[in-house]
Amino acid sequence: MNSETKNQTPPKSQRVLNSTNSIIGDLLKLAGQADIISFAGGLPSPKSFPIKEVEKATQTVLEKEGALALQYSSTVGEKPLIDQIGKYINSKGVPAQADEIQIVSGSQQALDLLGMAYIDKGSLVAVESPSYLGAIQAFDLYEPKYIEIPTDEHGLNPDLIGPEFKNIRFAYVITTFQNPTGLTLSVERRKKLAEKAREYDFWIIDDNPYGELYYDQEPPPSMRLYAPERTISLGTFSKVLAPGFRLGYVVGPKEAIAPLTQLKQAVDLNTSTFTQLITAQIMEDGLMTTHLPAVREIYKTQCEYMLKAMDQYFPKEGVTWTKPDGGMFIWVTLPESINTDELMKEAVARKVAFVPGSAFYTVGKEKYNSMRLSFVTVPPAKIEEGIKTLGELLKEKLGQ
Amino acid sequence: MNSETKNQTPPKSQRVLNSTNSIIGDLLKLAGQADIISFAGGLPSPKSFPIKEVEKATQTVLEKEGALALQYSSTVGEKPLIDQIGKYINSKGVPAQADEIQIVSGSQQALDLLGMAYIDKGSLVAVESPSYLGAIQAFDLYEPKYIEIPTDEHGLNPDLIGPEFKNIRFAYVITTFQNPTGLTLSVERRKKLAEKAREYDFWIIDDNPYGELYYDQEPPPSMRLYAPERTISLGTFSKVLAPGFRLGYVVGPKEAIAPLTQLKQAVDLNTSTFTQLITAQIMEDGLMTTHLPAVREIYKTQCEYMLKAMDQYFPKEGVTWTKPDGGMFIWVTLPESINTDELMKEAVARKVAFVPGSAFYTVGKEKYNSMRLSFVTVPPAKIEEGIKTLGELLKEKLGQ
Repeated sequence: MNSETKNQTPPKSQRVLNSTNSIIGDLLKLAGQADIISFAGGLPSPKSFPIKEVEKATQTVLEKEGALALQYSSTVGEKPLIDQIGKYINSKGVPAQADEIQIVSGSQQALDLLGMAYIDKGSLVAVESPSYLGAIQAFDLYEPKYIEIPTDEHGLNPDLIGPEFKNIRFAYVITTFQNPTGLTLSVERRKKLAEKAREYDFWIIDDNPYGELYYDQEPPPSMRLYAPERTISLGTFSKVLAPGFRLGYVVGPKEAIAPLTQLKQAVDLNTSTFTQLITAQIMEDGLMTTHLPAVREIYKTQCEYMLKAMDQYFPKEGVTWTKPDGGMFIWVTLPESINTDELMKEAVARKVAFVPGSAFYTVGKEKYNSMRLSFVTVPPAKIEEGIKTLGELLKEKLGQ
Repeated sequence: MNSETKNQTPPKSQRVLNSTNSIIGDLLKLAGQADIISFAGGLPSPKSFPIKEVEKATQTVLEKEGALALQYSSTVGEKPLIDQIGKYINSKGVPAQADEIQIVSGSQQALDLLGMAYIDKGSLVAVESPSYLGAIQAFDLYEPKYIEIPTDEHGLNPDLIGPEFKNIRFAYVITTFQNPTGLTLSVERRKKLAEKAREYDFWIIDDNPYGELYYDQEPPPSMRLYAPERTISLGTFSKVLAPGFRLGYVVGPKEAIAPLTQLKQAVDLNTSTFTQLITAQIMEDGLMTTHLPAVREIYKTQCEYMLKAMDQYFPKEGVTWTKPDGGMFIWVTLPESINTDELMKEAVARKVAFVPGSAFYTVGKEKYNSMRLSFVTVPPAKIEEGIKTLGELLKEKLGQ
């Protein structure tokens, strides 16, 4: 009997053969190494997790409706959570009926479902330049072609959207505290983007994981306010409650949500009933008003801390960076002589990590002189140490 | 300003345009209607849920490692859970190293990832005839062609596997308390299936959600025992603990698991850390030995109850059904004059539901004279009432 197989796996699909190893995965691994100061990962500060509130809500849910919480859920999601999300969105002045909301297993799953529902091989998809690398990875599985939406120091520039957008499947945007730039689109540009979407008849996917993480002033609401008939918006509990729950939601016209529900049935049946009902209970207990100010304060302080360290330690000439009003990221632009893919290796050798800018571009990878720094995971004392190390490395490279 | 869009959704992908509405989804909706006695859904009995144990384990986890439990997890899964699963599988005499295990968001997600990793459009995939409809739906998204593995009253028949299996991507089988038939493959047939897999060099995916739900005698172990070098096996906590956790696992040679990890990164980053750590704690607390006997007893009793009612109320001539030794399902074969797709409508009008047999076939839908009955969700008194109604309807149809 021949117990050897010629192949170590079943025959692989083209999509696996075409795909490269995940950058996010490698980054999370790096971020997990104890001796690396990682500005790469986007892991929320554990200080922000409401452990006691979760414990209390879990107890309430198990005692009140334990059998329900441990059973399968419907594919759209649990009504108490959908109702709470609807109320929350309405409180921002944005429309959302119960049948316009689909619960997902983290907003990363929303990206996968949107790709599956609305991208064929070769379809045109518009993304900001730069954009969230996790979205690009999710869409890549469905083999689109990308159009980049040009951005400047105020975020995406709707004036530069032309007739080439007529044939896109959708424009994927992060209008608030963008990943990776940290920039927020003004109300004026939001309105202009809505006009352009109507003019060229395209759909907008507005991914909004960071909107509640503002430092002083609440940012403008989702594109759903400005173009409700053609916007699908994404939300998540990962940044305001706990990423370990894997809980997000998609909001849009019900006809545009229906295909996502149908596909979700096939890909994971439903999202955890248990974490859905606990989260509904936490929202009912008033988390959004009581817990969020403390989270915002943590991130504001850490952001200020990093910006101060950058002022102190980064080279002065030819190096610029964004000053976000919220969120988790600072975007650094370096002189063109520096390739951050290469710089990353030297930085890691000195026990500091960041995400090289090239990871956030779709059309060519020619933009090598940028990097994303996250200030939310690393404690303040380590922020200074890491920025100092990175600043010294940059000064050496630039001869400053 | 034109605020109307021509389209109510973004342009749909071919896979959405090709797909029909989900039968499982419709069934879960029916099962949820209060006045229907549903033998259709496969919802575990809520009586089997260890609510107190979950409450205790949650408290322990939040107090011991709350910040960890609420944070992102690595994509492969949490080490404490992987270690517990490894130990559990080894206790069955089946090999499983830590790096051969991938945690998934319910075993439905494993089916999606396997399809994504190992099916291209037009690839050949072998499934039992009949097979689990949720697997067929998951694979369908990747547009394979199917070969059916013939089954008889003892389950799949490996003697009928010939050289046409040389070019398949994999054979998807449920060897124990099969869905939908309830049949279990003998050790002899398992060995023969392993031989055929070696002879024709194909991979086996052995889906095993029901193995622990045996009534008297423990069934033979997974195909991993008989062909470890070419078997990927699937497990889940949905039937032994709680479907609301959405927690399953894939076990196989590490090279065959790696593409699943890579894809999972893009589709949902990771499975809930919270439910993973709670489940690891519950396993450490000894759930598998203390809780399962009670679950088995519930299902054994309900199965006996249904079989007894069928003996009493079902027509005698030309109607046969399986007598499972475990699991959740009875498979009924009717005279060929009866089309159960049609019968379903009349049954629902009389407030009883089942799954028409055609849902479980891939190659043609010609096998209309069968149905799947689940005895696990409906309480005993309602089982008798529902079977009586169904028996009367069948007798009318058959003139008995």
